[in-house]
Amino acid sequence: MSVPVELDGVEINVVGGGVTAPQGFRAAGIHTGVKRQRKDLSLVVSDRDCTCAGTYTTNRVKAAPLLLTKKHVDLNQTVRAIVANSGNANACNGPRGMADAVAMVEQTASVLGIAPEQVLIASTGVIGVPLALDKILPGIERASQALSPDGGADAALGIMTTDTVPKEVAVKCNGFTLGAMAKGSGMIHPNMATMLAFITTDASVERPLLEAALKDAVAKSFNMISVDGDTSTNDMVLVLANGASGVSIEPNTPEEQKFRQALDYVCITLAKMIARDGEGATKLIEVRARGAKTVDDARLAVRAITTSQLVKTAIFGEDANWGRILCAAGYSGADLVLEHVRVELGDVLVFDQGMSVPFDEELAKQVLAQKDVAITVDLGAGDAEATGWTCDLTYEYVKINADYRT
Amino acid sequence: MSVPVELDGVEINVVGGGVTAPQGFRAAGIHTGVKRQRKDLSLVVSDRDCTCAGTYTTNRVKAAPLLLTKKHVDLNQTVRAIVANSGNANACNGPRGMADAVAMVEQTASVLGIAPEQVLIASTGVIGVPLALDKILPGIERASQALSPDGGADAALGIMTTDTVPKEVAVKCNGFTLGAMAKGSGMIHPNMATMLAFITTDASVERPLLEAALKDAVAKSFNMISVDGDTSTNDMVLVLANGASGVSIEPNTPEEQKFRQALDYVCITLAKMIARDGEGATKLIEVRARGAKTVDDARLAVRAITTSQLVKTAIFGEDANWGRILCAAGYSGADLVLEHVRVELGDVLVFDQGMSVPFDEELAKQVLAQKDVAITVDLGAGDAEATGWTCDLTYEYVKINADYRT
Repeated sequence: MSVPVELDGVEINVVGGGVTAPQGFRAAGIHTGVKRQRKDLSLVVSDRDCTCAGTYTTNRVKAAPLLLTKKHVDLNQTVRAIVANSGNANACNGPRGMADAVAMVEQTASVLGIAPEQVLIASTGVIGVPLALDKILPGIERASQALSPDGGADAALGIMTTDTVPKEVAVKCNGFTLGAMAKGSGMIHPNMATMLAFITTDASVERPLLEAALKDAVAKSFNMISVDGDTSTNDMVLVLANGASGVSIEPNTPEEQKFRQALDYVCITLAKMIARDGEGATKLIEVRARGAKTVDDARLAVRAITTSQLVKTAIFGEDANWGRILCAAGYSGADLVLEHVRVELGDVLVFDQGMSVPFDEELAKQVLAQKDVAITVDLGAGDAEATGWTCDLTYEYVKINADYRT
Repeated sequence: MSVPVELDGVEINVVGGGVTAPQGFRAAGIHTGVKRQRKDLSLVVSDRDCTCAGTYTTNRVKAAPLLLTKKHVDLNQTVRAIVANSGNANACNGPRGMADAVAMVEQTASVLGIAPEQVLIASTGVIGVPLALDKILPGIERASQALSPDGGADAALGIMTTDTVPKEVAVKCNGFTLGAMAKGSGMIHPNMATMLAFITTDASVERPLLEAALKDAVAKSFNMISVDGDTSTNDMVLVLANGASGVSIEPNTPEEQKFRQALDYVCITLAKMIARDGEGATKLIEVRARGAKTVDDARLAVRAITTSQLVKTAIFGEDANWGRILCAAGYSGADLVLEHVRVELGDVLVFDQGMSVPFDEELAKQVLAQKDVAITVDLGAGDAEATGWTCDLTYEYVKINADYRT
């Protein structure tokens, strides 16, 4: 299966396989018993050394596995594997938390015959509860035996928490392949959540370029989604490049642009999957701010709108409530020139030149009744733009989060 | 009726009467027909000239009446009256919006026999719809005829929108009286909302002191509440001081401290009433951050917690979910030392020294089952503290806001 997509002149082909689509990667996802029935442990392994890069939560409270991964990435050496468990975030467990994370990494290194520093680790799930190492350590051994070049789908299952669907994507472009998986049903909920994304590629990419490309891609994708605005203690995005395709991405070449576009595509696709799978969500809302003085201003406006409870509930109610959208843009901190501001719902212009415009309420209803709703705000202050995604705020969201822990 | 309260050694007596409790103020609240049945126009008038001060929304989109009030306050002259209508915010109506606001002010000045610059104006309600001046202008004349020294309660009714209860308070202290009314059922919803508060006093207070005291009081009260984090185009707080009591508040005297404490008390009382009356709310949540490096840090932590959808839904679900509270403190931007962080729900310690502590779940359930829930977070980083208020996030909130406009 291969679906061609053209992005700014670069043709990329969407393929199956997730994190194991690129050459030289194997993966597994198994059930260890931390969760009752579903898979709760994933392993992604490269047959050869990988350059790597990561971005991490800005939360001041950081979980032990995240701190350990950052330490390994910061060593600036090559890595070989990612081990990730779900069902327990191993956060706020004091010194024992770090000891347990180290034990997971050492077990992974041992069963794979690599150095502990070559292993990256992530955990997601409930916080403040010690890890059940008696289940996880033997699980790591079993996972290593289950590793397969077709294991991407299983690995995507092993990192899910409140996600209702697994999230993976892979693309071929210009002789190399990028694969990825993510979890997250929001940005979101500290207590059984976290946004995790793991990206693999068989391109050869030096560390500085890989870091720069990941930072930009994350800024356009995972940092532009919001389900409820909360940032967890465990959020991270990792990318591993093993060079198995023989294609080398050199800085300041057309190949760099292609690689960056493919990486952006992969990250944006996963980010939209996460927003669409927001807890209790019935709609994916795409918010575009244009006419901004700067990209930062455009992003401020997008974020204010995507995090506004009032906008999110109005869209759930399929209500063409432009006042809430305009108001969020107004308090976002972005410069705007009210006399030039425009607001559109889908293709329906509802606000122009500082005033509401008469619009076809039936047409607006039709736009809002779709599963995908687009909101466009022109700030009338410049030429910069940005896009972000969120979901609607529903009764079901309240239900899930009011009843969550008990 | 008089209820004594002692605050830091200053005795103040809570009395009835709202904005007309101080000497020399009359008020009225009437129905003009902008709203179907309920009162929709309020007038507050002082028999003598008043010094005044105001604070306004930070939203870049500001409604015409707010701009006109700010213009009059900035003239630095005395004022005599506030006219406020509900049911229509007169926002985003282009040049006509300002013309209509001016017409309301001129009509008020005319029927009271004062200068237009002595009138302050506020509007709250739906935005983007022109004002029905044919109802409001004759209404202003009728309201002027209904002015009464007992009219505070009627005036508090005339500014309500989605509020379920009128909000007023008055205190006597040291020979002067402060009265106040507010509206707001959130910070909140641009389209039929706005936070308005009007404060009257018969103390004599020079403009610079009045401005400074109001700014501080607002920082501790209205700026520390959140229902859904949205800031409207029409939010404002005004204070009028007419000196009718003969008590003069001079800077750097014990009287200044008493006046400031009384003003803080009035503003905090109204702010809590607003948070408690948040749309769909069943509980008032008081959040206190202590052990912060600075007051700004403490306020950041409080605001992150009071605006967290996850915390608000957990409290609705009466779930002792300390992970969400800790996580919000973590991403607030406030400095914290995880090893010294403590979290308490009411009197129940649930998190200490970077780890969860075993606690009596039944006791926690009892704390969370109350109408008033207190959350305390010690950031372990210093000595500063701050307090804020919010309400729980409920099914009813989603219902009200999904169905609002239609």
